[in-house]
Amino acid sequence: MAKIWQKGYEVDKILEEFSVGLDYMLDRELVAADCAGSVAHARMLAGQGYLDSGDARALEKALREIYAGFHSEGFVIPRELEDAHSAIEQLLIEKTGDAGKRIHLGRSRNDQVMTMLRLYGREYLLNIREAALELTEEIRGFAAEHEHTPMPGRTHMQIAMPSTLGLWAAAYAEELADDYELLNTAYRLYDRSPLGTAAGYGVPLNIDREFTASLMGFPEVQNNIQAVQNSRGKLEGAVCDALSAMVQTLSKAAQDLILFSLPEFGYVSLPDELCTGSSIMPQKKNPDGLELLRSRAASMYGWSNQIHQIIQSLPGAITGIFRTARSPFSGPSRPHCRP
Amino acid sequence: MAKIWQKGYEVDKILEEFSVGLDYMLDRELVAADCAGSVAHARMLAGQGYLDSGDARALEKALREIYAGFHSEGFVIPRELEDAHSAIEQLLIEKTGDAGKRIHLGRSRNDQVMTMLRLYGREYLLNIREAALELTEEIRGFAAEHEHTPMPGRTHMQIAMPSTLGLWAAAYAEELADDYELLNTAYRLYDRSPLGTAAGYGVPLNIDREFTASLMGFPEVQNNIQAVQNSRGKLEGAVCDALSAMVQTLSKAAQDLILFSLPEFGYVSLPDELCTGSSIMPQKKNPDGLELLRSRAASMYGWSNQIHQIIQSLPGAITGIFRTARSPFSGPSRPHCRP
Amino acid sequence: MAKIWQKGYEVDKILEEFSVGLDYMLDRELVAADCAGSVAHARMLAGQGYLDSGDARALEKALREIYAGFHSEGFVIPRELEDAHSAIEQLLIEKTGDAGKRIHLGRSRNDQVMTMLRLYGREYLLNIREAALELTEEIRGFAAEHEHTPMPGRTHMQIAMPSTLGLWAAAYAEELADDYELLNTAYRLYDRSPLGTAAGYGVPLNIDREFTASLMGFPEVQNNIQAVQNSRGKLEGAVCDALSAMVQTLSKAAQDLILFSLPEFGYVSLPDELCTGSSIMPQKKNPDGLELLRSRAASMYGWSNQIHQIIQSLPGAITGIFRTARSPFSGPSRPHCRP
Amino acid sequence: MAKIWQKGYEVDKILEEFSVGLDYMLDRELVAADCAGSVAHARMLAGQGYLDSGDARALEKALREIYAGFHSEGFVIPRELEDAHSAIEQLLIEKTGDAGKRIHLGRSRNDQVMTMLRLYGREYLLNIREAALELTEEIRGFAAEHEHTPMPGRTHMQIAMPSTLGLWAAAYAEELADDYELLNTAYRLYDRSPLGTAAGYGVPLNIDREFTASLMGFPEVQNNIQAVQNSRGKLEGAVCDALSAMVQTLSKAAQDLILFSLPEFGYVSLPDELCTGSSIMPQKKNPDGLELLRSRAASMYGWSNQIHQIIQSLPGAITGIFRTARSPFSGPSRPHCRP
Repeated sequence: MAKIWQKGYEVDKILEEFSVGLDYMLDRELVAADCAGSVAHARMLAGQGYLDSGDARALEKALREIYAGFHSEGFVIPRELEDAHSAIEQLLIEKTGDAGKRIHLGRSRNDQVMTMLRLYGREYLLNIREAALELTEEIRGFAAEHEHTPMPGRTHMQIAMPSTLGLWAAAYAEELADDYELLNTAYRLYDRSPLGTAAGYGVPLNIDREFTASLMGFPEVQNNIQAVQNSRGKLEGAVCDALSAMVQTLSKAAQDLILFSLPEFGYVSLPDELCTGSSIMPQKKNPDGLELLRSRAASMYGWSNQIHQIIQSLPGAITGIFRTARSPFSGPSRPHCRP
Repeated sequence: MAKIWQKGYEVDKILEEFSVGLDYMLDRELVAADCAGSVAHARMLAGQGYLDSGDARALEKALREIYAGFHSEGFVIPRELEDAHSAIEQLLIEKTGDAGKRIHLGRSRNDQVMTMLRLYGREYLLNIREAALELTEEIRGFAAEHEHTPMPGRTHMQIAMPSTLGLWAAAYAEELADDYELLNTAYRLYDRSPLGTAAGYGVPLNIDREFTASLMGFPEVQNNIQAVQNSRGKLEGAVCDALSAMVQTLSKAAQDLILFSLPEFGYVSLPDELCTGSSIMPQKKNPDGLELLRSRAASMYGWSNQIHQIIQSLPGAITGIFRTARSPFSGPSRPHCRP
Repeated sequence: MAKIWQKGYEVDKILEEFSVGLDYMLDRELVAADCAGSVAHARMLAGQGYLDSGDARALEKALREIYAGFHSEGFVIPRELEDAHSAIEQLLIEKTGDAGKRIHLGRSRNDQVMTMLRLYGREYLLNIREAALELTEEIRGFAAEHEHTPMPGRTHMQIAMPSTLGLWAAAYAEELADDYELLNTAYRLYDRSPLGTAAGYGVPLNIDREFTASLMGFPEVQNNIQAVQNSRGKLEGAVCDALSAMVQTLSKAAQDLILFSLPEFGYVSLPDELCTGSSIMPQKKNPDGLELLRSRAASMYGWSNQIHQIIQSLPGAITGIFRTARSPFSGPSRPHCRP
Repeated sequence: MAKIWQKGYEVDKILEEFSVGLDYMLDRELVAADCAGSVAHARMLAGQGYLDSGDARALEKALREIYAGFHSEGFVIPRELEDAHSAIEQLLIEKTGDAGKRIHLGRSRNDQVMTMLRLYGREYLLNIREAALELTEEIRGFAAEHEHTPMPGRTHMQIAMPSTLGLWAAAYAEELADDYELLNTAYRLYDRSPLGTAAGYGVPLNIDREFTASLMGFPEVQNNIQAVQNSRGKLEGAVCDALSAMVQTLSKAAQDLILFSLPEFGYVSLPDELCTGSSIMPQKKNPDGLELLRSRAASMYGWSNQIHQIIQSLPGAITGIFRTARSPFSGPSRPHCRP
């Protein structure tokens, strides 16, 4: 099976291992997003007269099948196809013949990858925003309930002044609301369509970027085609900075609760279901979940730092910097960007 | 001369050196802001009936004198007074007697320091926002002028497709506009008054936080008194993250220009006034300014990282963490927060 | 199937998802190391009279079978067993009955995990050290060959003085030798046995730490039992700092080669096998491998930063901080720490 | 007064402000080191026949005067001379006429700056190494004294097992010994003479690098002239990584003591001389010194991170990257590198 971008020589095996890495596995996360972006692209090509309507319909039908097959039976990307895009293109060609080859018209790997990653990341960010709002409401309710529950106020970790559990909790609700604003701004910049920018210099076709953007649910296009490429890593960094602020808030609350639940403090008692025991000290309740939350805040900032390191001192118009970098949005939930 | 917060024992000399550090010098930058905050606080105390109007007038007059003296003759903070607040309080007592001692009513070092730092930082941020807008306009104008000036478009640093100088420049204008949005959000969170939160647990007086906020030009108060203390470092971190994004954009443009001005590329020629020569190779023009800009972007991110490190894994209600940390807003311009 | 550390209540599902995460998959990498460590521990227990020799032999035989089965058929750690240790203990109990329960005597999860991670990491570090030496020799040979091959010397990226390809290459060989010294020191600190320190306070048995250390090939024990726990993350950070320095050297060389191979410079020509083409610009050769190397150096430093963030401001005697953090030593090669 | 490297045009004022920054003030710290390096260079030039012995004696006498004057009366570097080197060269020309102009022979700003920084940094590192050894001994003594003083052992911050104060203290002594090894390796790489490498391509003179190295007390020369330039920032980064590990150890001990001295724990009582009071809560003793130590550990790592950011993704043979970066070795003590 020939690699689509191959041009007659064998890419050295070690380089392939190095550059493809685990892409062929990680990219399974991106199949749904790539199908969605390809449907939008195919419809746009048809609308602008670059694809006849039969081909467009065949492509859309095939993409829906690929997406459905992926969700029902999973989807193995063969290592030699390297990534989701190549695997999907290969399947399209198998299913639709020449139509499958035409999907690449007016699109480069660069804008295709960015589109897919933004669709994918957006899904997580929407979930996170929603969860953050819910959590803020929960904490506000808890704070209201405990408006008059007395608890010592501490400075320098030492008892300083009388205070309440409600004040303590309300502080974190307010901080989460601040974090939400930071995240929202980064999200708005991220939630713009990069499709149609190709490798940063556009394409010599009369494409309709607003149309594909609206099909994919982006409220606007990211305008300057070169800025789109320049923003690789930078917008992800802005998003991760904001996520990092949010997890930092939770980490501080967790650190407080670890202290407050110490027998020496005894302000709160953690539910058994949130703790684990010790294999050699059966009397202990370890606040594992809270400790891990604290550690995750550090990790989240570490991801952010990693992205900033990667783009540091690079000139503009660099492409491909993130091929094998692991997504900072990874986690258990699943994006639902149906084509 | 007795330290105001001293209580009968001598703080060990080494600790003093360690904890005071260069505060007594760096704090000179903060004199104007502290005077402005103190005027607002004194007026509020008088308005709420905690200070008689004669005392309030005397304090305001004395603060204006201190501020004026600081601007005309400079201001040396004696090392043994440690910081701007203590020095100003000492001067107030000398000038107004008992009134000077009453200014501390309803205020803690914690909210006083935060107020002062935000007034100070806000001044720089306003300048930076304005400069960013001007620069964006400049670049837009330049881009429009060169809309049709051909320049090779590069990917992977190699010539890839025909492009224009205008497209290149316009990309950076658009990125700066994005950065401006990030900065603006962080700025809005930062531009809230912390005065009246004391050490995170308020004061047992009927103070008017909205009144002092409006006197100091803050559009709103930062509401939860404990969230204010929790936000130390966090909001500064958010601001620095945004500034870092902005300098990163400039650094990328600088890196492009370093390449474009190489004789091997020759797309642009840097003005002699922006370059320096080499002491042993007289034929060379070194793009020092651009190189330093690139390096500053890294430094700016380094400041941001430092702040994030400092707050990492700390519980809430920690005070005093930044006493001797150097301000990330330092630089040549001067804040003008007249009392 | 009961969790070994479970004590009568159900750990909340969400917490379990959060705290176990992908451990049950990632831990497959650690099976060999855990088997090796357990064999050493069992032999020591027998030697000190805490285990009868029949049990010890049964355990060793079972551990060898587990290890062999893992290598021939793979090894699935059931999610409900969470990690490699639990899975192996479960198998031991199935294979040896009561003997399997006795392996935990005189050992805590804390020192067990640390032992296993060091055995695992050591394997990679040994490979890296060897590869670094080989690479240094290669580069030295290349430098000698090109001692007189002229190449312009650049400062500020501009041609400055005549130089040679050999000088350029020899610089990187010398830097790698420096990096090797940094790595070696970190390695020496890392390559000490933590086994027998339990949770930082030892065990009330007469165990022989030197014996287990020598069985596992550690040249020495890490002595202070509490320092061992304190060093979690810290020694990994030291190792990653050193690895980061090494990859940084390679990254700088890669960045030079990216520039030198530009048509505008033309000092070197990259072999086709190390480049990839562009899907829309067939004339181009993209130095993907070198770009990714540059990006990897940033990522490596990012890992290092992440570890430093995680341990920042934690008090001593913290355990469990890294349960679900992904190993910074991950990669294609496989540790061979046969039991 | 003409700038020595000036070549007939006025460097733009803003660029000057930007690139010179506070160098003219910070460089006062470097006067002694520059004098020492210049004496070594002058003697070597005379020994190799590039400077007549009268000139060499005159230069050495003048450098000793400059050094002595600097120590007795201080030394103001006029802003227009930008840095210590230019100021010293100017003074040499005033004092010795043409001889002063000859000191630049066979030396570039690049190796001169590096030499001076290493002499300067070495002084601090020697002090730090000595202090670290003394501190380790102190802690060992304290640990021995308290070998049997009971103190609860904690895991997950909770009381877990009986332990001793001595074990706790001895852990930090052992960790400091580990840190010392890391620092020592970085120090050995740093403590090599860069003088004679010019801008990375050497000088067309028969200079004697071993001779200047030995005059300045460097045990060896850093050999490859291009590796020397490549190592800018990298070796400083390695040193700062090691310093960071050391301060991290102290920070962890400080964090323990903050907890142990809480009234709720009450294991230790901090001496009044190491604490400060609160302006509004007179009963409290705030562990300011320990809190600042914790914060300094974060800052130290921040400096390290900043250096790593600055060198990230730069090609080799970059010069001048650190002109205005503030030294990470700054602090109260003074280097004594007498010429």
